[in-house]
Amino acid sequence: QGILERLDGGEVVIGDGGFVFALEKRGYVKAGPWTPEAAVEHPEAVRQLHREFLRAGANVLQTFTFYASEDKLENRGNYVAEKISCQKVNEAACDIAREVANEGDALVAGGVSQTPSYLSCKDKTEVKAAFRQQLDVFMKKNVDFLIAEYFEHVEEAVWAVEVLKESGKPVAATMCIGPEGDMHGVSPGQCAVQLVKAGASIVGVNCHFDPETSLETVRLMKESLQAAKLKAHLMSQPLAFHTPDCGKQGFIDLPEFPFGLEPRIVTRWDIQKYARKAYDLGIRFIGGCCGFEPYHIRAIAEELAPERGFLPEASEKHGSWGDNLSMHTKPWVRARARKEYWENLKPASGRPYCPSMSKPDGWGVTKGAKELMQQKEATTEQQLKELFQKKKF
Amino acid sequence: QGILERLDGGEVVIGDGGFVFALEKRGYVKAGPWTPEAAVEHPEAVRQLHREFLRAGANVLQTFTFYASEDKLENRGNYVAEKISCQKVNEAACDIAREVANEGDALVAGGVSQTPSYLSCKDKTEVKAAFRQQLDVFMKKNVDFLIAEYFEHVEEAVWAVEVLKESGKPVAATMCIGPEGDMHGVSPGQCAVQLVKAGASIVGVNCHFDPETSLETVRLMKESLQAAKLKAHLMSQPLAFHTPDCGKQGFIDLPEFPFGLEPRIVTRWDIQKYARKAYDLGIRFIGGCCGFEPYHIRAIAEELAPERGFLPEASEKHGSWGDNLSMHTKPWVRARARKEYWENLKPASGRPYCPSMSKPDGWGVTKGAKELMQQKEATTEQQLKELFQKKKF
Amino acid sequence: QGILERLDGGEVVIGDGGFVFALEKRGYVKAGPWTPEAAVEHPEAVRQLHREFLRAGANVLQTFTFYASEDKLENRGNYVAEKISCQKVNEAACDIAREVANEGDALVAGGVSQTPSYLSCKDKTEVKAAFRQQLDVFMKKNVDFLIAEYFEHVEEAVWAVEVLKESGKPVAATMCIGPEGDMHGVSPGQCAVQLVKAGASIVGVNCHFDPETSLETVRLMKESLQAAKLKAHLMSQPLAFHTPDCGKQGFIDLPEFPFGLEPRIVTRWDIQKYARKAYDLGIRFIGGCCGFEPYHIRAIAEELAPERGFLPEASEKHGSWGDNLSMHTKPWVRARARKEYWENLKPASGRPYCPSMSKPDGWGVTKGAKELMQQKEATTEQQLKELFQKKKF
Amino acid sequence: QGILERLDGGEVVIGDGGFVFALEKRGYVKAGPWTPEAAVEHPEAVRQLHREFLRAGANVLQTFTFYASEDKLENRGNYVAEKISCQKVNEAACDIAREVANEGDALVAGGVSQTPSYLSCKDKTEVKAAFRQQLDVFMKKNVDFLIAEYFEHVEEAVWAVEVLKESGKPVAATMCIGPEGDMHGVSPGQCAVQLVKAGASIVGVNCHFDPETSLETVRLMKESLQAAKLKAHLMSQPLAFHTPDCGKQGFIDLPEFPFGLEPRIVTRWDIQKYARKAYDLGIRFIGGCCGFEPYHIRAIAEELAPERGFLPEASEKHGSWGDNLSMHTKPWVRARARKEYWENLKPASGRPYCPSMSKPDGWGVTKGAKELMQQKEATTEQQLKELFQKKKF
Repeated sequence: QGILERLDGGEVVIGDGGFVFALEKRGYVKAGPWTPEAAVEHPEAVRQLHREFLRAGANVLQTFTFYASEDKLENRGNYVAEKISCQKVNEAACDIAREVANEGDALVAGGVSQTPSYLSCKDKTEVKAAFRQQLDVFMKKNVDFLIAEYFEHVEEAVWAVEVLKESGKPVAATMCIGPEGDMHGVSPGQCAVQLVKAGASIVGVNCHFDPETSLETVRLMKESLQAAKLKAHLMSQPLAFHTPDCGKQGFIDLPEFPFGLEPRIVTRWDIQKYARKAYDLGIRFIGGCCGFEPYHIRAIAEELAPERGFLPEASEKHGSWGDNLSMHTKPWVRARARKEYWENLKPASGRPYCPSMSKPDGWGVTKGAKELMQQKEATTEQQLKELFQKKKF
Repeated sequence: QGILERLDGGEVVIGDGGFVFALEKRGYVKAGPWTPEAAVEHPEAVRQLHREFLRAGANVLQTFTFYASEDKLENRGNYVAEKISCQKVNEAACDIAREVANEGDALVAGGVSQTPSYLSCKDKTEVKAAFRQQLDVFMKKNVDFLIAEYFEHVEEAVWAVEVLKESGKPVAATMCIGPEGDMHGVSPGQCAVQLVKAGASIVGVNCHFDPETSLETVRLMKESLQAAKLKAHLMSQPLAFHTPDCGKQGFIDLPEFPFGLEPRIVTRWDIQKYARKAYDLGIRFIGGCCGFEPYHIRAIAEELAPERGFLPEASEKHGSWGDNLSMHTKPWVRARARKEYWENLKPASGRPYCPSMSKPDGWGVTKGAKELMQQKEATTEQQLKELFQKKKF
Repeated sequence: QGILERLDGGEVVIGDGGFVFALEKRGYVKAGPWTPEAAVEHPEAVRQLHREFLRAGANVLQTFTFYASEDKLENRGNYVAEKISCQKVNEAACDIAREVANEGDALVAGGVSQTPSYLSCKDKTEVKAAFRQQLDVFMKKNVDFLIAEYFEHVEEAVWAVEVLKESGKPVAATMCIGPEGDMHGVSPGQCAVQLVKAGASIVGVNCHFDPETSLETVRLMKESLQAAKLKAHLMSQPLAFHTPDCGKQGFIDLPEFPFGLEPRIVTRWDIQKYARKAYDLGIRFIGGCCGFEPYHIRAIAEELAPERGFLPEASEKHGSWGDNLSMHTKPWVRARARKEYWENLKPASGRPYCPSMSKPDGWGVTKGAKELMQQKEATTEQQLKELFQKKKF
Repeated sequence: QGILERLDGGEVVIGDGGFVFALEKRGYVKAGPWTPEAAVEHPEAVRQLHREFLRAGANVLQTFTFYASEDKLENRGNYVAEKISCQKVNEAACDIAREVANEGDALVAGGVSQTPSYLSCKDKTEVKAAFRQQLDVFMKKNVDFLIAEYFEHVEEAVWAVEVLKESGKPVAATMCIGPEGDMHGVSPGQCAVQLVKAGASIVGVNCHFDPETSLETVRLMKESLQAAKLKAHLMSQPLAFHTPDCGKQGFIDLPEFPFGLEPRIVTRWDIQKYARKAYDLGIRFIGGCCGFEPYHIRAIAEELAPERGFLPEASEKHGSWGDNLSMHTKPWVRARARKEYWENLKPASGRPYCPSMSKPDGWGVTKGAKELMQQKEATTEQQLKELFQKKKF
């Protein structure tokens, strides 16, 4: 059954987790460029991670094609592009995802994301060409559906949806924005409306913000869709980091990004709360982005097992709410084998010399920057960069 | 070259990270039992983790045989033992480790750890029989050397070393203790002296405490060995969690163990400090235990690259001290591409409703328990458990 | 010169600090009732506190008549009312304030605050009678101007202003609300507009929220006054506690209120930032409420000394930005004798087992309660109390 | 009854709180010099503070003569000494204390503390002369007993005790040290033994460390006195700040000293725990030092009311364990009117951008400094200062 049949039928569809962060920790992706050449260089590592998410309960395996547009690979990873063609990366990613999907009950989704071309003000035709190049591979490899994800500007996201719709396959679209909206000041609700009008059947958010903030953003989207009498399925794939302190551009502006985020990593219990809250909000495509490891995805599947009627394979190795501790030799560890314990635990950081929140760098805290963007003096990241350098705000 | 040739020659030998914690997050190990049946059930997952540690710079691959003594597998995992024999697990673990070790320059170490037999007061003969059963497999599979690790009682560790020495192979021995010493009140220094006298060529600590505390324990061991004019190489494989607040039995007594430890996870920069400090203390076998992921092992290899003269393979995908951020589009992210930044960052937890330290449960804070153990009214965990139930301390 | 002459002339007028909290710590006020019978029982203690605020730079001494309406004294402190009449308390408070004001350059302000009569739904006539009873004393004792402060409902505040205006004296009015507005859902801007229309020459906020939040509330008031083309002077007298975590009803709902607020106490440097920000926002009557001790008021006077042209008397015993440490015997303490040090210090709590934020109790976190209030099902605290008891929200 | 009759009779004697810190906040003492010229300049302020402590339950009023030796007044406050003679300050302080003591059941204690003469290596004769000059005033004014307090070097404290003993009056002696001992490395136990042998009838600690640490120091003193078969009463007057993170020289080395200590201020409930623990340890002279406000002293008197049989006068304005909240209009505030609530509350700091612990500056963290002091290369603060400047440690 395709993605829309599942969602239309009322199923909860579970997404997978964050490839670039997980593979960075495993040694196969470089932070900074965040490009997916590992699909060619180390297919066994990519395949294993897909398997772990499948085993954890994911119904959708996204091709590992994040930032795999030709302009991005050139821009960020010329050491790669010399050796490995963009097309080869995209094809290999599709093959691996399909191979693993066939081991279980999962769909393969081909993904495109924001491009350097857009940020450097290339025109619509050029930007769309970049998406079309990736789409050609997805069609050749016959993915089940398509996701346009990680867009900071709804304008570019709409262009992506328009290209992906040419395929005739179902299209999902998620933006990496928070409740304040996109980088040009378009509200989450307006973003959702534009994406659905452009042809997306599923809309929502991914990346940049923690589960709680992301659900608030999706709630705003839902409200506007209802007000506009538009129908679409809702989707959320947030960070697995607590980010109550971030500004408009999310976790990238936090001083801990990307190499000091550890104390912010969410627990499996945080994810169970997220899954429940997402479900209650009416979201039926529930997954994760950066920071989500297989055990986080399993936590979604375990929380929603009553609704779905089954547990994922990886729950063989996990007791519900810690009940696998009930045999521990120490009585006080046995006492942790219950839901109330983990639900109410306020976990310590072990870091008494560290604060609990940070001030974001950059636009995150810079009123001037936000106003500039709203006043359209700067409408691209490139322009903002130049303004930053000139005015030092 | 064997382990002793390397250490005698002044080389820095890098250990691997923590298998049970890493594979629990990947969905292949059950917390609570913590047994290694995945070596048979999902060899591809175990193989992939070995590969990642090898790629990160590990020179030693430990067979995934933690808690794989027959009594433990029966005791904790009868659902397993019915299907998979203890011998089969141990053999599979050896085969996988050897297969990956052959892909690079690594040694295979067969490992034994503390047994339920000892804790339930079985006699020396019986306990030694359990170790010998595992040793038979290690000899058949011809591992390069042997590690007795994760012992809370030096008496049992000595018995393990005596058995392993029968093989003629080099033996390393590490205890999971802190500066207060073993569970019977034997100081770290005395533990080290007894282990070396029993035949260990390498001694140190693993698990239960954070890097800083573990190094203090090894320092005490070193002092006593010098005072006793005994020669041995030093080894450390601590947790990758900050645990300044734990009591005598380490992180198991922390309320966050094992499902809420995320905010305590150390960064790669914490590990670089650890590696440097370990090196300066004279430790030359430097690795990790629970919580150590491949990127933590890579941090050891990167910190000590000047001394060792080379970087590990996985450094292809990592810039030293964040220099892979130097091309970022945002100027304030580019500003993070330097050592001073990451060295001095005090990372926030993003959890303003949580404390920074916890009070440990159980003996950790129970004076009565410690005194009982020292007075030998209770010399086994079983007896303490009974006392706990009677007296409710 | 009267209060309006000063403000109209562009002067910065400094208010005093919080009497009930300061005198509670000194042993003269009972938390809970918070009534001012000390004016009769221990005039020397009240006189001394006035003197300290005067010495710290206060230009306005408020009569210690908080909660000194007859209904309140009866309601909360019958042990008092039997012995000491309401009139006697109000008269004594006026006499003490005038005595100390005459020792320096200060005005005496008579104050009224919200009444139990209003909260228990007495009608306008009855509530106004309570204010008029206090006003009679203020007229007899000839205070310089009047302040209606600590109102949670603008309706009652308007009634108070109307009564006070009968006197012909200048009237200031402050509400103890945050940016979400009053307990019936009236926005800060609307509150300000109504108060000015009722005759208040000075409007703003006092109590319930920290300096930062209070300034945001005043900013909203200012915007609405400008939009309505109304002219009034602005005033702020916030808490001297950090309360970023409180809900609509402010610090009363925080679990720490009122006996565990110590870790939230602001430093003198926090107050200097507050004073500067208040000044920049156009506020010219700048003081404090609960938690403000004399040294906090001095910090306002020191920060604004360049604008005002002089330091307060108590600065004899204080160096600007810590420069009194420049003679310390320890070099590292001497290093603290500079502005940058104190401005940038992030002071530690010394409480690693405590969180940095709390979840407020009661309506603070109870959506149901807020909605009820907005839907006017419950428009009085009494009704809410009953609803709370019935529905347990 | 004199101090010794009371203590010998088994009474609990309650001390007063910290004058220099309390009067600094009230605007009468300058941080840095910390000298008591307010006794002459503003006797009403000093008198009022004495009254508040008396009312809170203090049985001992210490003359406000801290740092009032002639050398100190000259050294730190020449702006003062020119106008006000040392003798005048000491006499005025005695008169005020006696006046207030006569209002209740309190003893007057004359106090001396460490001198610049000692720190700059003046000889025994000269140092003793400074103490004798103050003692002359105390004899003329006929104080009830004498306290030598705030000594970092036991050698100087012994000299002070020897001088004070010449008077024939009872002598108490407290050092401002922690469990690591005095600045020359003399252990707390050895300090206590030397002080008792020199003639002190009461020994203990004051200032520099929080209640918990101070009680540990007194415990060490008690052990050594018992081992030496010496009899003396025990006394504690700690800080009212949480300082788990400070080094050997206590809170002065914390980065927050003295203008950013607010988040460390202890609650009344912390003090009740302290009073109980002090009592259980056998301490019978229980008071406070810097940071102790009248309500903290009242908390001692309330905690020990069952043992003493009465409450202090200021308890008129205080309910035990918050029971004055039982009439509050809000049900959730009423729910705070019980012991369990306040005993278990972990109060939040409201400061999510601040850490919970700090690294002390200076010797506090400098191994080299401690070793130097122990090796006697530097035995005076002056010498250490020079070494610091030379070696930059």
